[in-house]
Amino acid sequence: MKFSIQKDRLVGSVQDVLKAVSSRTTIPILTGIKIHASDDGITLTGSDSDISIESFIPKNEGEKEIALVEETGGVVLNARFFNEIVRKLPASIIEFETSSSFQTIIRSGHAEFSLNGQDADEYPHLPQIDDENVFKLPADLVKTLIRQTVFAVSTSETRPILTGVNWKIENGSLICTATDSHRLALRKTTAEGLPAGEYNVVIPGKSLTELSKILDDTNEPVEIVMTDNQVLFRSKHVLFFSRLLEGNYPDTSRLIPEEYKTKIELNTKEYLQAVDRASLLAREGRNNVVKMSSGESGTIEISSNSPEIGKVTEQVNSISSEGEELKISFSAKYMMDALKAIEGAEIDIQFTGAMRPFVIRPLHDDSILQLILPVRTY
Amino acid sequence: MKFSIQKDRLVGSVQDVLKAVSSRTTIPILTGIKIHASDDGITLTGSDSDISIESFIPKNEGEKEIALVEETGGVVLNARFFNEIVRKLPASIIEFETSSSFQTIIRSGHAEFSLNGQDADEYPHLPQIDDENVFKLPADLVKTLIRQTVFAVSTSETRPILTGVNWKIENGSLICTATDSHRLALRKTTAEGLPAGEYNVVIPGKSLTELSKILDDTNEPVEIVMTDNQVLFRSKHVLFFSRLLEGNYPDTSRLIPEEYKTKIELNTKEYLQAVDRASLLAREGRNNVVKMSSGESGTIEISSNSPEIGKVTEQVNSISSEGEELKISFSAKYMMDALKAIEGAEIDIQFTGAMRPFVIRPLHDDSILQLILPVRTY
Repeated sequence: MKFSIQKDRLVGSVQDVLKAVSSRTTIPILTGIKIHASDDGITLTGSDSDISIESFIPKNEGEKEIALVEETGGVVLNARFFNEIVRKLPASIIEFETSSSFQTIIRSGHAEFSLNGQDADEYPHLPQIDDENVFKLPADLVKTLIRQTVFAVSTSETRPILTGVNWKIENGSLICTATDSHRLALRKTTAEGLPAGEYNVVIPGKSLTELSKILDDTNEPVEIVMTDNQVLFRSKHVLFFSRLLEGNYPDTSRLIPEEYKTKIELNTKEYLQAVDRASLLAREGRNNVVKMSSGESGTIEISSNSPEIGKVTEQVNSISSEGEELKISFSAKYMMDALKAIEGAEIDIQFTGAMRPFVIRPLHDDSILQLILPVRTY
Repeated sequence: MKFSIQKDRLVGSVQDVLKAVSSRTTIPILTGIKIHASDDGITLTGSDSDISIESFIPKNEGEKEIALVEETGGVVLNARFFNEIVRKLPASIIEFETSSSFQTIIRSGHAEFSLNGQDADEYPHLPQIDDENVFKLPADLVKTLIRQTVFAVSTSETRPILTGVNWKIENGSLICTATDSHRLALRKTTAEGLPAGEYNVVIPGKSLTELSKILDDTNEPVEIVMTDNQVLFRSKHVLFFSRLLEGNYPDTSRLIPEEYKTKIELNTKEYLQAVDRASLLAREGRNNVVKMSSGESGTIEISSNSPEIGKVTEQVNSISSEGEELKISFSAKYMMDALKAIEGAEIDIQFTGAMRPFVIRPLHDDSILQLILPVRTY
């Protein structure tokens, strides 16, 4: 293998594939990045066997030469060192040359590194995915779907299926659901490009978090292919593979109450800041719990109490308030997570009692819903 | 105690005094910040008994009212909570009111906190420092003196005196010296404002680091008062006290060689970047050691070698090179620390042999000197 390449393009690609590389892998070769030079350009691959990322750098882009391949071939180089080295190289062009023993010379300006490489043929193959059932969504929508749901996945391995986000496609709409059994986040879209067929997969939360970091904030299409045990997201020059979680995702639709006894409309930001302030003292107490009560005047009160430190109370004016008076306690963290995920400037919260799950929605928008189970303190 | 105050001014002062507060103190009241309202304004105090910081907020500044004191008095409030609370309060004015049991109400907008306070009379008194021997230096010079030396203090308590920086004033010049016995940093100034008398103190490195964070990057004067066991730095509204280290600082002047066998002039940035690249592989080996050799051509070579990862060599052109050929090994970290402390674009390094300390100075500037002991590897 022998080629030269623009430094800035290589640095960008290394950053992308590095997101799949874990230092804690049990398969030694996966601590490396696979570099492959073909007649078309350079391909980098990183993987922790759950996630695999492949980034392609074409030889030319329009008139501009990005890489010059003199000899095709491949090698695997230690990911951490490779990343640090390429970022710190002095010149804008980097040359690579691998000998038969996989020793790889990296040259740039007056600096010359010689790294011990490994045989690229020993690197695990990426999943083979059939291109039959491809659908497309804009990159920024995919990022939003992830951001509004992934925080609610379970971090405990007690029920592994809950560490993923359920992506369910039917009747031309996609519903993304995450729950850790104390709260639930749901986001729905009927965007153009969704397939007519039915799909029901559970994508690990960690995979979606890493995918989100790689996608651009543009409406460029991302191609998505779902198989029985893998999902592939393909943007311009990057392939992102994730394994799927096995098992059936619980039916969460029956958790969402359809009626309410109290409904309160609030300014999202004012309410979020009041909960945030109350949580300052709640953190010391048990479970970061704050209390909320509504009176007849339309004002609600947020409060919290830590015997050692002190207490806090705050009045928040509601936009409107209807139904029964309410006293309820909930996790400030869950509430803040939910409010941050909602994009609307105004929300309504629908309660069906102090010990029943309650639902937060932006006003005039049915595409997103956040549900939280209260905590018993009153 | 009862007063109201501008939020932004209070937040700034809390940030300053918080730098002296440690959560690991053995004196419980020192986990708090002392707040005192007098007829002139509000004084905040934080201390870990080594460092004490006092910040004063005047009642008025010109025409502008900053604080309104209705009842003088004081209280001690938990530093961490107090800091988080004031930063997150909703309105631009904050009201304080302390009851006889030190319970303190903090009110802002619709939010009301009630914090358990402690008796301000129980808070340790700050050192009493006589104003007789005051001298002044510009704040930005004090910051530079600290930045160019403090990184070289020892982090080991084996010789406690070496954890401080020696400030020695004689004949109208101030010499700041720090050494961990593997390297030494020295910075000299003959700035106007230095006293005629002699002073020789050792200021804990940690104190100087915190002081540096509080001082502004301006040439506003800082008043300095040195006593037998305390030093006081006084800027506009902040008093910064530090205890001094006890004992005699070693005489380091005889460590600095006065002659050389090899002298090399280099571009600081090019040389620093080459050492940085070589250190990428050196980190894995023992002690982060890189090798440097000079030949007849005026080119020097930086190299490093890690049997498991690979090796690196880089040529750096010197501006000039005279004397014996050289092969030497040193800590890349010490070299990078020293080079970053030097402000000049060009340096010279004077060597007196592979196992003798060598000296780095900016060209045409005698005020700063960095000395490093080499490592035996050749």
